[in-house]
Amino acid sequence: MAAAYIHPSALVESDAVGPGTRIWAFTHVLPGAVIGRDCNIGDHCFVEGGARLGDGVVVKNGNMIWEGVEIGDAAFIGPHVFFTNDLFPRSKRLPEAAARAAKKENWLVRTRVQHGASLGAGAVILGGVSIGEYSLVAAGAVVTKDVPAHALVMGAPARVRGWVCRCGLRLKWRGQRGACHACGLRYRRGSRGVELSAAGRGR
Amino acid sequence: MAAAYIHPSALVESDAVGPGTRIWAFTHVLPGAVIGRDCNIGDHCFVEGGARLGDGVVVKNGNMIWEGVEIGDAAFIGPHVFFTNDLFPRSKRLPEAAARAAKKENWLVRTRVQHGASLGAGAVILGGVSIGEYSLVAAGAVVTKDVPAHALVMGAPARVRGWVCRCGLRLKWRGQRGACHACGLRYRRGSRGVELSAAGRGR
Amino acid sequence: MAAAYIHPSALVESDAVGPGTRIWAFTHVLPGAVIGRDCNIGDHCFVEGGARLGDGVVVKNGNMIWEGVEIGDAAFIGPHVFFTNDLFPRSKRLPEAAARAAKKENWLVRTRVQHGASLGAGAVILGGVSIGEYSLVAAGAVVTKDVPAHALVMGAPARVRGWVCRCGLRLKWRGQRGACHACGLRYRRGSRGVELSAAGRGR
Repeated sequence: MAAAYIHPSALVESDAVGPGTRIWAFTHVLPGAVIGRDCNIGDHCFVEGGARLGDGVVVKNGNMIWEGVEIGDAAFIGPHVFFTNDLFPRSKRLPEAAARAAKKENWLVRTRVQHGASLGAGAVILGGVSIGEYSLVAAGAVVTKDVPAHALVMGAPARVRGWVCRCGLRLKWRGQRGACHACGLRYRRGSRGVELSAAGRGR
Repeated sequence: MAAAYIHPSALVESDAVGPGTRIWAFTHVLPGAVIGRDCNIGDHCFVEGGARLGDGVVVKNGNMIWEGVEIGDAAFIGPHVFFTNDLFPRSKRLPEAAARAAKKENWLVRTRVQHGASLGAGAVILGGVSIGEYSLVAAGAVVTKDVPAHALVMGAPARVRGWVCRCGLRLKWRGQRGACHACGLRYRRGSRGVELSAAGRGR
Repeated sequence: MAAAYIHPSALVESDAVGPGTRIWAFTHVLPGAVIGRDCNIGDHCFVEGGARLGDGVVVKNGNMIWEGVEIGDAAFIGPHVFFTNDLFPRSKRLPEAAARAAKKENWLVRTRVQHGASLGAGAVILGGVSIGEYSLVAAGAVVTKDVPAHALVMGAPARVRGWVCRCGLRLKWRGQRGACHACGLRYRRGSRGVELSAAGRGR
């Protein structure tokens, strides 16, 4: 497999970038960032030490992936998603905030984007939430709590407004049974949320 | 007319940039992008192949103009507007999404910003909409459907909250007749929406 | 005190950058921008001539600080906050808007962020507002009017949803008396808003 491709104008200071990954113009990857294989990181991004990306992740332009953010395989991070890792930020130079700022465990909250999830352009993700497998966060949504697997969430604060297939399209429901008209996968809605039905899995 | 000005730190890979246009620091224009004359493209922008800008367009800093986005003459794109061109995005590395990703007609939706329109800072523009002539999208608005000519829209989702003159200021109404107190242009509201009245046009 | 640190990829065209300040990758500071001492300006920022930052200000990545924006000491500007300085923007190339664009006093509105305030990721700040001392604007909020000192505001448009301590954490209230459980400072709510009580000041 090809080594990583780094655009000449990018600054990549981490050695932990997997083969086949491409990193584009004016992007800055700091020491300590971990990026898997076959990822595509667009222009004007920033990946901080302590951030972790799995394999096959698409990070569109202008993203800032902070320490404390972990992104699962094959997730899609749309343009300029807003991650955060401190719910009560202050300048470290503010004397009254110095004590809290001094210890990372006082302020660092962790965010996890699960396998195959997609975050739309300009979505705001409050620190501390988990974005479920194959979910879809609409452009401009403000996510303030966990997003279930396969959920389509939108609005500010974001609410569940539907459910999407692994392929990304909306599911159609008849009672507790759902299906994707495009790829034919079948789902069921149960106590653990929306998941592939046995029949769906059998494909 | 002067040739285009390209800041030394910008990367311009398209030949289709009109005379008099200025492109500023850390901006990246890809092959196949078309930019008219007398435009001003700020810092940290990205213009993708397949994007088209008319003449006299102002693109403030941090914008990403994707394939499928077409911007009319003398439009104003505020800082970091969020365009999108896929309503159900997924990583191309996600096997379940590969079939849809493979054909552009499966996912590419087109956005058109008409002549003289203005988009405020951080506005989110869902793929597939048309932004009418001389309209004004407020900062932070989330536009999910077409915006009429001369409309002022705000909120998430964006709603029409007023009407603006060609010059950008709010119109005052008496019944179906409107006027701009600043530049004196007169308008009427009819079955085709808000438009200059014959008197207004006569100026 | 150490001179300012400028990352090799940054473009700093102002001499008015205070000692101890650090300016990071791909950031562009224009002539006429004024930046105090001990500030930290992240990657991919833009500071325009006429912008003013005090001492100890943290500016996270991707911010655009326009002419007309003034930021007090030890304020925290989260990633990609959206400042604006024109409420009715138009392309300067639009003939109908040229008269208004020609004179700065026709369109330039000023924004002031007071001492110790924090602005969350992706917040939108309409031109012309004042963000009070030690206030906290939530990520993704759209601020359309002045924010009182110590207020926690969120939503679009932003509303007051609580009050925060100088250290950034939420205050607990018993009637008109508030306290921070973390740092022990005490506050009172009176006709001038929320302020440190005499006892709090005595610490």
